[in-house]
Amino acid sequence: MRTIQVIGIGSGDPDHLTLQAVAAMNRVDVFFTIDKGAAKTDLSALRTELLARHVTRPHRIVEAPDPRRDRAAEAYEAAVVDWQDRREALYERMIADELDDDGCGGFLVWGDPALYDGTLRILDRIAARGEVAFDVVSIPGISSVQALAAAHRLILNRIGRAFTVTTGRRLAEGGFPADADDVVVMLDARHAYAGLPDTDLDIYWGAYVGSADEVLVRGDLQQVKDEIRRVWTRERDRKGWIMDTYLLRRRVPEPDGAA
Amino acid sequence: MRTIQVIGIGSGDPDHLTLQAVAAMNRVDVFFTIDKGAAKTDLSALRTELLARHVTRPHRIVEAPDPRRDRAAEAYEAAVVDWQDRREALYERMIADELDDDGCGGFLVWGDPALYDGTLRILDRIAARGEVAFDVVSIPGISSVQALAAAHRLILNRIGRAFTVTTGRRLAEGGFPADADDVVVMLDARHAYAGLPDTDLDIYWGAYVGSADEVLVRGDLQQVKDEIRRVWTRERDRKGWIMDTYLLRRRVPEPDGAA
Repeated sequence: MRTIQVIGIGSGDPDHLTLQAVAAMNRVDVFFTIDKGAAKTDLSALRTELLARHVTRPHRIVEAPDPRRDRAAEAYEAAVVDWQDRREALYERMIADELDDDGCGGFLVWGDPALYDGTLRILDRIAARGEVAFDVVSIPGISSVQALAAAHRLILNRIGRAFTVTTGRRLAEGGFPADADDVVVMLDARHAYAGLPDTDLDIYWGAYVGSADEVLVRGDLQQVKDEIRRVWTRERDRKGWIMDTYLLRRRVPEPDGAA
Repeated sequence: MRTIQVIGIGSGDPDHLTLQAVAAMNRVDVFFTIDKGAAKTDLSALRTELLARHVTRPHRIVEAPDPRRDRAAEAYEAAVVDWQDRREALYERMIADELDDDGCGGFLVWGDPALYDGTLRILDRIAARGEVAFDVVSIPGISSVQALAAAHRLILNRIGRAFTVTTGRRLAEGGFPADADDVVVMLDARHAYAGLPDTDLDIYWGAYVGSADEVLVRGDLQQVKDEIRRVWTRERDRKGWIMDTYLLRRRVPEPDGAA
């Protein structure tokens, strides 16, 4: 039986790699990689570094172009599904053609396979089609949310409280959730934070968190939102791509006034 | 200047440790540890194993008893704050007494320092008191939420959607959040899931996730809730302590019927 390992490699710092991920990488016969457009150069460089530093057994790398996603589409979910359909066909072919019947394939994914990454979903769908059989192993990795929290020395939850992880798109559409005090926002390409009217929010923002390019801004949302947008634009222009994440925290007193 | 490193060591698997955590552990002069009651033996054993396997430089271990927390208190937050006050005094004394002026102290914490762990909060408060000066470094680790997701091969979010992380207490008090479809529950000592009337929820449950004792149950909440309670009781009686986590997922069709 084939095995496919989906291995979280952290969010930019090569030392985010876990010992479990290193061991998993050393079981892989074929690493499957997907071209990620503008971010490709940096991502490929990190992947190459990780393989060179940590993988001691012979392996192959099979690279495929990422199907283009229609980012202008009105129906966001439909566009994602269409793009995933094309990825699905591509992955199925790679697994069937490149892997022996008892071979081990590996996908190195940014952050954690459980957080805003579609690889596990695509593999589930390929398995359900039944054309090619394989087991799936998921290896957790340090996500950009965790790298953001560490960089700002934050605890994401407050004592006994909940927090929500959402996307920039949902924040732009629905505003700051009425019943939440702490909201982590991922995948915000449109500066959703800048459109919030709330005057009682602090923002803890970071881009390329964990990497050598890490930039951080924190403060009262209304006071720092223009600075964030400037830093975002400057860095995106400099590197050609950007990945940012932030926590929005409503200023409410904790019991006993603890911060 | 003293440095205090709060190092996430993952949620039970010694190989959850990141390379960053290993490097951080090798900068520590004094590891501070707290007695954790019933779970102490297993936790101490893992800590001892991690230090023996990975720390190559001389270091000391300073152990202090954990102040007892009043778990029967009506006011949960007040009880936590009172307990943290006593921890604060204890930590402040340990840092002042046991660490040289330029020394490096380390706390090894379960999971990730950013997720339902109070160490960073306590250190912030000690720093604010101004009696002892130190820098704080936070090193992210694999949380039990991530280990749960990996064990069940889950993606926590659905395409473009939000998810919420909350506590058993809040779930018991407020029920399944009306505006959420995916809710991760931590710190549930009272089987809050079993009291939910919802008939459209799946549960992905796990205890000791990532460790050799890992147990998993998944299925329709109403159909498996009694089994989870049985497994919980059996394992808690066997080991003397239990740490469990679960995802509640409302069954709603994804676009295109994808699972």
